[in-house]
Amino acid sequence: MLRIALAQMRVIPGHPSRNTETMLRMITKAKQQDADLVVFPEMAISGYLLGDTWEQTSFLEDCEECGREIIAASKEVAVIFGNVAVDWTKKNNDGRVRKYNAFFTAQDGRLVAPDAMPYPFAVKTLMPNYREFDDTRHFFSLQKLAKELGVATENLISPVRLSVHDREYAFGCLLCEDGWSDDYGLSPMKILREKDRPDFFVNISSSPYTLGKNAKRHRVFSRLAAEAGAPLFYVNNVGVQNNGKTVYTFDGSNAAYDARGVLRLSGAPYEEAIYVFDLETLSERKPVTIAEEPEAAYIFRALSYGVRLFLESIGMKRVVVGASGGIDSAVAAALYARVLPPENLLLVNMPSVYNSETTKGLARRLAENLGCRYATIPIQPSVELTIRQLESATVENLFDGTTEQLSVSSFMAENIQARDRSARVLAGLAAAFGGGFTCNANKAETTVGYSTLYGDQSGFLSALADLWKYQVYDLARYLNESVYKREVIPQETIDIVPSAELSDQQNVDKGQGDPLRYPYHDYLFRSFVERWQKATPQDILEWYAEGTLEKELGCAPGLVAKYFPTAKDFIDDLERWWNQFSGLAVAKRIQAPPVLAVSRRAFGFDHRESQNGPYYTKKYKTLKSKLL
Amino acid sequence: MLRIALAQMRVIPGHPSRNTETMLRMITKAKQQDADLVVFPEMAISGYLLGDTWEQTSFLEDCEECGREIIAASKEVAVIFGNVAVDWTKKNNDGRVRKYNAFFTAQDGRLVAPDAMPYPFAVKTLMPNYREFDDTRHFFSLQKLAKELGVATENLISPVRLSVHDREYAFGCLLCEDGWSDDYGLSPMKILREKDRPDFFVNISSSPYTLGKNAKRHRVFSRLAAEAGAPLFYVNNVGVQNNGKTVYTFDGSNAAYDARGVLRLSGAPYEEAIYVFDLETLSERKPVTIAEEPEAAYIFRALSYGVRLFLESIGMKRVVVGASGGIDSAVAAALYARVLPPENLLLVNMPSVYNSETTKGLARRLAENLGCRYATIPIQPSVELTIRQLESATVENLFDGTTEQLSVSSFMAENIQARDRSARVLAGLAAAFGGGFTCNANKAETTVGYSTLYGDQSGFLSALADLWKYQVYDLARYLNESVYKREVIPQETIDIVPSAELSDQQNVDKGQGDPLRYPYHDYLFRSFVERWQKATPQDILEWYAEGTLEKELGCAPGLVAKYFPTAKDFIDDLERWWNQFSGLAVAKRIQAPPVLAVSRRAFGFDHRESQNGPYYTKKYKTLKSKLL
Repeated sequence: MLRIALAQMRVIPGHPSRNTETMLRMITKAKQQDADLVVFPEMAISGYLLGDTWEQTSFLEDCEECGREIIAASKEVAVIFGNVAVDWTKKNNDGRVRKYNAFFTAQDGRLVAPDAMPYPFAVKTLMPNYREFDDTRHFFSLQKLAKELGVATENLISPVRLSVHDREYAFGCLLCEDGWSDDYGLSPMKILREKDRPDFFVNISSSPYTLGKNAKRHRVFSRLAAEAGAPLFYVNNVGVQNNGKTVYTFDGSNAAYDARGVLRLSGAPYEEAIYVFDLETLSERKPVTIAEEPEAAYIFRALSYGVRLFLESIGMKRVVVGASGGIDSAVAAALYARVLPPENLLLVNMPSVYNSETTKGLARRLAENLGCRYATIPIQPSVELTIRQLESATVENLFDGTTEQLSVSSFMAENIQARDRSARVLAGLAAAFGGGFTCNANKAETTVGYSTLYGDQSGFLSALADLWKYQVYDLARYLNESVYKREVIPQETIDIVPSAELSDQQNVDKGQGDPLRYPYHDYLFRSFVERWQKATPQDILEWYAEGTLEKELGCAPGLVAKYFPTAKDFIDDLERWWNQFSGLAVAKRIQAPPVLAVSRRAFGFDHRESQNGPYYTKKYKTLKSKLL
Repeated sequence: MLRIALAQMRVIPGHPSRNTETMLRMITKAKQQDADLVVFPEMAISGYLLGDTWEQTSFLEDCEECGREIIAASKEVAVIFGNVAVDWTKKNNDGRVRKYNAFFTAQDGRLVAPDAMPYPFAVKTLMPNYREFDDTRHFFSLQKLAKELGVATENLISPVRLSVHDREYAFGCLLCEDGWSDDYGLSPMKILREKDRPDFFVNISSSPYTLGKNAKRHRVFSRLAAEAGAPLFYVNNVGVQNNGKTVYTFDGSNAAYDARGVLRLSGAPYEEAIYVFDLETLSERKPVTIAEEPEAAYIFRALSYGVRLFLESIGMKRVVVGASGGIDSAVAAALYARVLPPENLLLVNMPSVYNSETTKGLARRLAENLGCRYATIPIQPSVELTIRQLESATVENLFDGTTEQLSVSSFMAENIQARDRSARVLAGLAAAFGGGFTCNANKAETTVGYSTLYGDQSGFLSALADLWKYQVYDLARYLNESVYKREVIPQETIDIVPSAELSDQQNVDKGQGDPLRYPYHDYLFRSFVERWQKATPQDILEWYAEGTLEKELGCAPGLVAKYFPTAKDFIDDLERWWNQFSGLAVAKRIQAPPVLAVSRRAFGFDHRESQNGPYYTKKYKTLKSKLL
């Protein structure tokens, strides 16, 4: 019998000593449960998303030192763990010291090497370098190592053999992407299965959670196990890690698939826990079926976990939310209220002359429903002071001695209000309250920069900036119905037209709101950002001309004809938002707060961009003139 | 005779049609000068730093279409150019369509393929994936292609043969990094030289300018040409390109080395131009020696070019600089005044009660010296209103019905002043003036976040954020002495103690200034950011203990003992700034404006970071307790 413990540990990125403590604690627990082998995730010691911390030699030394502690602790129980491995005698292609993303197996205080490796550890073979990943920036792959050694990669891929209770078990070592080999022209799993027929496979991962990824993983890994005719164990960490601009949650969701690919064990999402089972009786366990939940349930789970751990990681205990009475700030407030004690949450309403009694009342009702702290700080006096100062200032031309006065347009006054709320009131209030203030921007606004820099585009974290507007509404309903099970977000906040209320033209009581028609623009913008091959006006116009646009975008049929009676209307709208998306919105996103990611393409490190201005292809221009 | 034209063109990233127009114009010019061959830089059509624009299929199609136009124009003159090449039948490892960073040669309206390539173009072999580069994210390398085809990379690397005036010329095709092969274990140049002995080599590049890079390139490429015994031509573009957070200038500096490695032709930095010469008489040209200039000259050239083109690229014609009377804003203003007509530059002084008559007078004198526009907008009334509002606001606890008032500390009031200046006055004034406002932060401040978010940390561009404080002073002197040739930046601004003037404790007239001791901290911080293997407190403390710290950091000897009488003083200071650098400063940099890069490691895409909080290694802790 081989008793295996899957350690779904919380990894703190960039803090090897804390992770080592966690691992030592979990090793003790695994021993208490009579495990023979305990498996930790990829980069369990170092953390995975660390930016250029990998360039700090002393950090690498520290990771190695922590690794030695874990190896020393592998008495009575064998330990598998991920860590950076350093070959101080060799170099990476960037001239820095050689680093591998490595899979270590330790038993009796010593490392056990894979059969055919020149090192006492396995090395990641397939290196993701898309989306938020940049493994190839820091780590030398097994493929490069094989080339350097003048052997085929296939020759280095080999199982580790462990003796437990006088039986030898051979297992295949996979690091995360090694299991996702479809587009690589090389499958480590296939090589192992055909060459060595291991008793089982272990995939250690550090895999950021995004919507739909787990379902896909279950399909892929179940098939891999069945093809190999051997069990496969998947160990992923929990916690949050970030690439600066983009914050990811890690849900763990450890899994054991039997030799027929049946899921027999599944870790609870986002919980640090150990899952213990016997290899030999795995297939006798009840099959696990994972019930599909509504999308908002996954979103709520990811966001509330992400917000909680992000706050913890930056040591922030109190939060201020600017509450306008609108939907985005209401959802943000309801979300933070599940994470913080209500006395640590302060909602503040900041009315100007343009804010309706309706929304002011809704903001207060929301705070009452949440039972949190509440304040009202009007911005009208300060906004008027600012406009007065700007318009009365004398601008001297020191070359010719002339002077002039500037004037503030109503559009400028809108931005002045937004900045007054955030950079003046919220930032000051948050400091005095002893915390930070949130950015409540959604993904549609963020895509086209429908926001004011240093105004509503600011805050310490954008918890909703990876949600389209329809997802914000779904989440609002989910919060009321399934989380709070009462009307916390006032129904009127859900029902009124979304509006910035920054001018007479944005009167919610008259139904005047944002220029965005979310039921269409949500989906149009998604095609710019989230499609694997990103859409541009050329694609959009081609689909429009073919009559397949709504189908391609996934929005409701009939919308395009309803919103845009003529091709000119359609094209004007398309160019307006494309100009924004690839123009000023890029500048705004460069200075925007970190985004809490849930989608398959989040802004930030997962959607790298350059401030190059809008571009239209020749084909687009030709098609446009045909249509007009 | 083979007459060659090196086209040092300005590439507009992400705008293939504009680049194609430039190339067609330069092809005509080359013909007028009887060139047989005209060489354009790497990614001349597409641009190089484009973020994930490479994921837009229609953009790729457009680049191909533009490429066909250039190929068609290769009548009477052969054309070499860089562009993305797409194989629509294959995939990259990310599942997206196959893309190569390619070297095209066209003659008589058709492509000429390298001897041994399966495509009618050469493919980049060595892919940089460090610093600001991420070639491997988007492009399939020649090495991967070779593996896919089951052949050695060496077999695919092969020359192109061109017939000109009834003579055949074979030349080696190199793409940028292909010439920098020291750490790759594979040298395309060596392979070509030993296998094919081409008549000459062409390296097309898109190589961002940083200090010292050209001198290194001349050493490397001169050696390569001499080793090969064949001339080498280097063609780089001019212009600015950016990765969102980091803006690079490209200086061109095209070069022709003869068969002995002697530099015979060198393009003027930052100028779009064509350089024509005859291959056969190259070595008869006068050798070019490039005079070393003071560092400030290079910095001024890069920054003034970068600012000018960045403004042009975002369509900004008018700029506001908050002028405090201090050194950073003075240098920024003097820099912008060289780029903009003086009437389009507005300096604004925003005094509070803490600003001295000294600095207020210096701000005005600076504006007078520049002959630009000038205004004074006091912030005291608004700051007082803000503090009054925050302190008088009633914060209700809606759970228990209690109320409380918050209080604003003097530290909070400092930040309120900074935000009032930037987010309230500068942002509003810039909009009314019809432009943007600058961020004047230097690299030392940026490293440790000695700045206020939405305050002095904001602006549309940080032109000085890649300069250490000593470089800012050097640039100030250079501007007066060598650019303006008169005292534009008042000498007193250079002489007074640098101070934020945000409280009574920061009184310049009493010599009270920043907590940073720049002659030491500039160099300490540089070691955190710019060393190839980044330094951490462990390294610093080891050097301190060994007595080699000043030598390792490159600062003046004796400083450490002078500033820090005891080990405790030293360690307190070290930890204070390390905590800032890897703590709150990361959060600030995430939301900071784009940085104009000049150093070998600039903040942003060249220094990727995660908000993970400060970390101290075990070795550090041991050494620390030994020293205390």
